[in-house]
Parts: sequence; structure tokens; C-alpha cells
Amino acid sequence: MEQILFNPIGIIHTPHTDIKGTPIQPIAAAGVRGAIELLPEYIPGLKDLEGFSHITLLYYFHKVGTPQLEVTPFMDTVLRGIFACKAPKRPNKIGLSTVRLISIEKNIIKIEEADMLDGTPLLDIKPFYPKYDNREHVKIGWLEKNSDFPIDKMYADDRFR
Amino acid sequence: MEQILFNPIGIIHTPHTDIKGTPIQPIAAAGVRGAIELLPEYIPGLKDLEGFSHITLLYYFHKVGTPQLEVTPFMDTVLRGIFACKAPKRPNKIGLSTVRLISIEKNIIKIEEADMLDGTPLLDIKPFYPKYDNREHVKIGWLEKNSDFPIDKMYADDRFR
Repeated sequence: MEQILFNPIGIIHTPHTDIKGTPIQPIAAAGVRGAIELLPEYIPGLKDLEGFSHITLLYYFHKVGTPQLEVTPFMDTVLRGIFACKAPKRPNKIGLSTVRLISIEKNIIKIEEADMLDGTPLLDIKPFYPKYDNREHVKIGWLEKNSDFPIDKMYADDRFR
Repeated sequence: MEQILFNPIGIIHTPHTDIKGTPIQPIAAAGVRGAIELLPEYIPGLKDLEGFSHITLLYYFHKVGTPQLEVTPFMDTVLRGIFACKAPKRPNKIGLSTVRLISIEKNIIKIEEADMLDGTPLLDIKPFYPKYDNREHVKIGWLEKNSDFPIDKMYADDRFR
């Protein structure tokens, strides 16, 4: 299969300068501000985005180490398959975060619930639309037994550096 | 900014052989079966995935034409910014679909609600976890006025070929 080449469309600036201590998901980053610096050539693509309260960002885990097919995720203490986890040491290191959209001015998009590292290369922005994106009546596998983890207060250590 | 190179981890087989007529989202693909053919080297990464009922697939829109910064989305009749749409003619043509996981046998993952074209290169599989992935109290911008569109019965035409 052919390799696929992407060009970042911008950079995400956040307060998180080290993997260690970074919120593991937007839910653990309540109130954390960040700013997307979009490459100016993409400004026309932002038209009509400001009416959305939430946007899904796809980005590159640029500081994460060599992929592993089994990892011990932050939400557990044993090895799990990488595709059964959201951990960043994936074969293709693409991150996905749905964050709050605060404002857009020219090429600067202010966000909240920023859970990615400072300097993260951004690949795509998609509007969050609950009718398409939410799911109900879901089975959650190994996460079921860990549903009492304090997920809104979980921060990374350096296991995926 | 540096280019980012990804290697597909597999291929998605579906009944959709032409863009025209393909469901525009999983919600419009109820009962539509598909199968992921994962490259065998990634089989260890599937450990523990079978307990999840829904998985989020990231993939490459391999048949979609040159990106455009404004498009007329299927859900509307006027031009919208590409980042305010889920339309496929994006600067980085990454698709995102949360589908039902039916079964896993060796490197074959059967899915339902398949809304992507046959032969689609797969980039990543993430488990769907409602506590992280669902959002409530969301504003949906231009989609608000179109909330009476029959979204569970919408199929693509050839505008993004």
C-alpha cells in the first residue's frame, strides 16, 4: 500500500510543554485554554465554523516515541492492544480531541479543554455534530471495570515519551 | 512545517464501489456490513478490542478530488468553509467514522454502519468510549436550520469526486 503524505494546516499552542502532567483527554483539561495558529492560506476554510461550540481536532503526536502494539494505558495497569486504547504510541500517531471553540480571529482559533502538547502539528478540524458523533448503548470492553477511575483528573506520566 | 508520512494499517472493504450513492455518515448506513483487512503484522494491536461495541476509524479519502476551502455540503445548498463541514475535499483528506464492531477473527474485523468506499486505506482504529467521546449541550452552527434533513437516509452524489 502506498504511503500517505499530509501537510500540517497549523500548530496548536497549549500550556503543556512536557508529556508528563498533560491531561490525558479533554475531560481532564476543563478550563485549559489553547490557541490554534492556522496557516493563513487556510483562513477561507474557517467560514461558518464560529457557530459551533465544539470542534474535533486531528493532530500528530509529534513528541511520542516509537509505536508499540501493546501498551499499559493510563486507565489500566496491564498491557492492552494499542487499537483497544487511545494511547499515543500508535502505528500512525494521530491524536483526536473534541475541544470547546471559544473564538476565531483571522487565523487564530481559541479553544478550551486543550489536552495536547504545545507545538502539536494540526492535521484537520471537523465540526462536532451530536447526531453524527455521539453514540448511545455502547459496550466499553476493559474500560468497564475501570469506570471508577477519576477520568476528569488524570494526567500523563512519561511512559509514552 | 514538516510533512507527515503515514503507512496504511489495512484496507476497508465495503459494498460502496462508487462515491455516488455512498451513505454520507454511519447513521445513513444502518445494517451495512463491511470488513477491515488489517495487515497481519498489526494483529497483536487488536488484543482486548472485541469487548467494545463501537470503534472510531480514521482513514484516507482515496477517491476524493482536489481539496477546496469552501464546499456546498450534502446538508446544505450554499458554500460553507471546509472546516465547518465534514465533507471529504479537505486539505488533509482524513475521514472519521464511528462504526459498530461485529467480530474479529485474526486480521479480519467485521463492522456494521460502513459508510466509506470499498478499498479505503485505514490509518487508525480507536475504541469509542462515551465518557471521552460524547458531548452534550452543543451548538451546531449552520446545521441548526437544517436539523430536519433526513440524515439517516442521505447518500452522496458525485460533487466530491
